[in-house]
Amino acid sequence: MSPDNTSDLPELWSHVPHTHLRYRAGDKVADIDAEATPGFTGSKSDAPALMAERNERFAGLQEMLYANSRSGDHRSVLLVLQGMDTAGKGGIVKHVVGASNPQGIQYKSFGKPTPEELSHHYLWRINKALPAAGHIGVFDRSHYEDVLIVRVHNLVAPNVWGARYDEINAFEQDLVDAGTTIVKVAMFVSLAEQKKRLAERLDRPDKYWKYNPADIDERLKWPRYQEAYQAMLDKTSTAYAPWYIVPCNRKWYSRLAVLELMIEALKSLDLKWPPANFDVDAEKKRLAQA
Amino acid sequence: MSPDNTSDLPELWSHVPHTHLRYRAGDKVADIDAEATPGFTGSKSDAPALMAERNERFAGLQEMLYANSRSGDHRSVLLVLQGMDTAGKGGIVKHVVGASNPQGIQYKSFGKPTPEELSHHYLWRINKALPAAGHIGVFDRSHYEDVLIVRVHNLVAPNVWGARYDEINAFEQDLVDAGTTIVKVAMFVSLAEQKKRLAERLDRPDKYWKYNPADIDERLKWPRYQEAYQAMLDKTSTAYAPWYIVPCNRKWYSRLAVLELMIEALKSLDLKWPPANFDVDAEKKRLAQA
Repeated sequence: MSPDNTSDLPELWSHVPHTHLRYRAGDKVADIDAEATPGFTGSKSDAPALMAERNERFAGLQEMLYANSRSGDHRSVLLVLQGMDTAGKGGIVKHVVGASNPQGIQYKSFGKPTPEELSHHYLWRINKALPAAGHIGVFDRSHYEDVLIVRVHNLVAPNVWGARYDEINAFEQDLVDAGTTIVKVAMFVSLAEQKKRLAERLDRPDKYWKYNPADIDERLKWPRYQEAYQAMLDKTSTAYAPWYIVPCNRKWYSRLAVLELMIEALKSLDLKWPPANFDVDAEKKRLAQA
Repeated sequence: MSPDNTSDLPELWSHVPHTHLRYRAGDKVADIDAEATPGFTGSKSDAPALMAERNERFAGLQEMLYANSRSGDHRSVLLVLQGMDTAGKGGIVKHVVGASNPQGIQYKSFGKPTPEELSHHYLWRINKALPAAGHIGVFDRSHYEDVLIVRVHNLVAPNVWGARYDEINAFEQDLVDAGTTIVKVAMFVSLAEQKKRLAERLDRPDKYWKYNPADIDERLKWPRYQEAYQAMLDKTSTAYAPWYIVPCNRKWYSRLAVLELMIEALKSLDLKWPPANFDVDAEKKRLAQA
């Protein structure tokens, strides 16, 4: 398969995810139907074959991004995954990101900050994990925790977290200016579906490790998280780094959608295989004699 | 599929790779047949289905390793890949490591040291890249470059690189003592096959980026590299961190072989799903009411 930049969105998509799922001013978190499959006309049974095909497309583009960095191209891509527990961030990492070459992936999960991290500015640990040229960075949670869990739990004063929205926008503007394409995915699962998923973790000994009693504490703060997500979308969805709203009750849909968002991000870089930075014929002769 | 620790080596293997491919005192690099497929009775046509099946097994075990780290298990696995250019290190990363969840993988490629790296001890950058608990670290080249390219090019005095074998052994002993299982893979491609693979990179514009004129300079030093590899095997294949010799002219074979080495390493940890570190029934009740 020879990756190129022409439109190749599969016909099962009636609407292009990167425009259709993009947050628009006025969108309300309370109105999101987590069960929906916006823009997709197919069904679950279409997903496996489509995932396989588009994973290959993604992997081809990722290799091209990586290849270009060897010739001095400084661009990179950053996937930011935010969502409540069980929204399926791990599944995106495994099934979407996992399809590409580990060589070009920089994955980072942001948990509770360590004492060292807390002793720095909240963007310190974020900066350290930014993708190198040619790489796809994947943030499993991110700097947005600093306006989500931090806001909900009052971990810092309101004027402190309140100032972060502008700060994050400025930070992301710098990243974009430096050549990073940012894909911010807000993943929404319904309260009922979350209950089902947490119950499954409690029913299966091979899932216990994914369960954390604190998840229920967070669940009980759902309305406050909705507010915090709403503010995050309203204040940090910018032209240069927009949020995408992905309904996640159907895992197969959310994975297909994020996969298309990533493909589109890579296609927007208008990548080509880099030209040789050596004399091909001369090298052929050297090799023949070596 | 429920991973367990019983022997499940596919029948197409007549000999267990982790004993059959292990370096033995007296093994000579000059005698290695890079074309061979030691221990494997199948053929190339068997490879795709077998890779898919064993990749799944590998991914299952990797998840279990990761899961255990959440309950305080500090163990990790480190795959060290060494080989001449075109031996197929990248293919191992893509097709073997790539089958597992990026969440649990720490990939690091060691190229020419940066000025900062050079200002430190040669193990400084190695230490920084060691896998965290529950992770599989992948070294694409490694500290062994410090007794390979460094030795061949006389980048430091002989007494300096000469002291490194013992130092590396002590370093690896510490890692093993701290809970890291080290899988060291020496990949061997023949001179003729290397020529073919370099020629392909020069024939295909989508492969130019993998070509480096310096590869031919290294190729011309083949006999000196053979000496350096021989010394590396003789001096650093220890009971606690043995080298495995993998013939790599047939990519499908080398990938299957390394995959089995990794599966075996994970099986040797005798992993089980970690027990719940919370009261399952109490949490079920809390969830029902949440």
